[in-house]
Amino acid sequence: MKLKVLAAALVAVAPSTAVFASEPIQPIRPAQEINLAQAELGKKLYFDPRLSKSGFISCNSCHNLSMGGSDNLRTSIGHNWQEGPINSPTVLNSSLSVAQFWDGRAADLKEQAGGPIANPGEMAFTHTLATSVLESIPGYVNEFKLVYGEDGIDIDKVTEAIAEFEKTLVTPNSRFDKWLLGDQNALSADEVAGYELFKNSGCVACHNGAAAGGTTFQKMGLVEPYQTDNPAEGRYAVTGKDADRFSFKVPTLRNVELTYPYFHDGAAWSLEEAVNTMGRIQLGKNFTPEENAQIVAFLKSMTGDQPSFAMPILPPSAANTPQPQPFD
Amino acid sequence: MKLKVLAAALVAVAPSTAVFASEPIQPIRPAQEINLAQAELGKKLYFDPRLSKSGFISCNSCHNLSMGGSDNLRTSIGHNWQEGPINSPTVLNSSLSVAQFWDGRAADLKEQAGGPIANPGEMAFTHTLATSVLESIPGYVNEFKLVYGEDGIDIDKVTEAIAEFEKTLVTPNSRFDKWLLGDQNALSADEVAGYELFKNSGCVACHNGAAAGGTTFQKMGLVEPYQTDNPAEGRYAVTGKDADRFSFKVPTLRNVELTYPYFHDGAAWSLEEAVNTMGRIQLGKNFTPEENAQIVAFLKSMTGDQPSFAMPILPPSAANTPQPQPFD
Repeated sequence: MKLKVLAAALVAVAPSTAVFASEPIQPIRPAQEINLAQAELGKKLYFDPRLSKSGFISCNSCHNLSMGGSDNLRTSIGHNWQEGPINSPTVLNSSLSVAQFWDGRAADLKEQAGGPIANPGEMAFTHTLATSVLESIPGYVNEFKLVYGEDGIDIDKVTEAIAEFEKTLVTPNSRFDKWLLGDQNALSADEVAGYELFKNSGCVACHNGAAAGGTTFQKMGLVEPYQTDNPAEGRYAVTGKDADRFSFKVPTLRNVELTYPYFHDGAAWSLEEAVNTMGRIQLGKNFTPEENAQIVAFLKSMTGDQPSFAMPILPPSAANTPQPQPFD
Repeated sequence: MKLKVLAAALVAVAPSTAVFASEPIQPIRPAQEINLAQAELGKKLYFDPRLSKSGFISCNSCHNLSMGGSDNLRTSIGHNWQEGPINSPTVLNSSLSVAQFWDGRAADLKEQAGGPIANPGEMAFTHTLATSVLESIPGYVNEFKLVYGEDGIDIDKVTEAIAEFEKTLVTPNSRFDKWLLGDQNALSADEVAGYELFKNSGCVACHNGAAAGGTTFQKMGLVEPYQTDNPAEGRYAVTGKDADRFSFKVPTLRNVELTYPYFHDGAAWSLEEAVNTMGRIQLGKNFTPEENAQIVAFLKSMTGDQPSFAMPILPPSAANTPQPQPFD
């Protein structure tokens, strides 16, 4: 008898599974296959400003987990208050991207993590100096040894641990995901209408997959050139191919309500503006105010559970730890 | 019968209570009488860089709760990478201080909280602008209304909430506190010897009370002048009295292992150096290496439970929220 009930329940689940299987956007799945020891170490490193020359800038400075994994600035602030060249993309769900950075120059999160540390305009350090700081801190020496089962700290382990932590930064359980999973009451009529518009207008050609983006590189200004003072040339900087000029990784729309301002130059501060611009320059469409409002309502339904964890407590430096050099 | 057991237990507790009652340093008590709603709101504000002109600097930037409530820099980095004039004191246990800032110019945490927001060298904002940013954020508008039971956001409520959160940032349960409470095994023989030296040498004349400091203002360089390039004149800036020149609020020694570098100018990077300097210029003593090591061991036993809480998730800005101005 109990088995029959279970079988009936399984049958009942099957149709709703089928619902999202045919959709261009899939639910975000909770983090799986995480090396928890690495991720816990990586969490500390993610929050540790001692990976920067100044001792002031950490990964979390520009990918702030209190703020949708971004800094909510047009472009970021780097060492010595340098103005960054491009908008800081969210770290949330970045494990779902085909590559990292706007131009995809890093293959994965591990490769990405090493970039800002050594970028003179960002954390302005070197991998060697960052590693020697960590090697001088007894708490880190012990934790790396426990996590990796051997002595020694190198940039490979550092970036691997940070990447493992970042793999935990997925945001399941948005109202849109609940709807995808079969809960018809999870979205309002306007939000559902916005999703239909999003699909029928062609937005999903680029914004697809679980992250609603991050699966391909696409030209910014497909139908109409995008006007910007920002000199970034996108994927061209990586491939050198003319066809890749102004081609950028399609940003995820997950948690997009939290990750303003929008576009690689951070020029659009509201979703309303961003939706209108995208419609015009990518699709040749002028959304009506009502359509725009419906699409924005749909986009806001993709805000998922934000990462929740205790602030890490960082192991203190020792007397021989190289001192930060904020003003040199 | 049960009452008798209880009475016996109370008698058993009494002697250990007496132990610390006669000591110059008292155990840190867990936070009490907290307005939790205000504190939860204040936690968000404490982490919110939108209280700064740049949108990049929050209270936590210089009083980092992952790093002993300090920034572990000689002096802090302010708006536009300005070099701060003085070492950032820890926020931990600051509710136990007689006044706030090194020179005591703020009477309490609430008054202190307003300072950095409007300081051109720190967050470089104004109270009016900070308030109008908050008033444009629907999540804050709602939360302030729920917490205060009325419409409206003003700097008085903002700083009150931040101060209430800061009152939760006490660090009980250090090994030294366990020892004070009667656990003879909580400290090593060297740590106990260090505490005895700390008392007998006169350190406790200034570093006393639950925070082992923060109870009085004292001249830096009592026996021998303190050599520094730092122009800060301490309490003199507040009172204008010559006698207060170079008189600073005695810093807490709680969690001192985490709050390097030391002194108002952040000149001493190790506890060994700080203890030697203090012995020489405040007490006219030259500690032997063994004495120094014992005092340092004792000081490290005062690291308590660090604040543990989930990173707050900040409510997103709205289309009409004044934009941050990092590069203006």
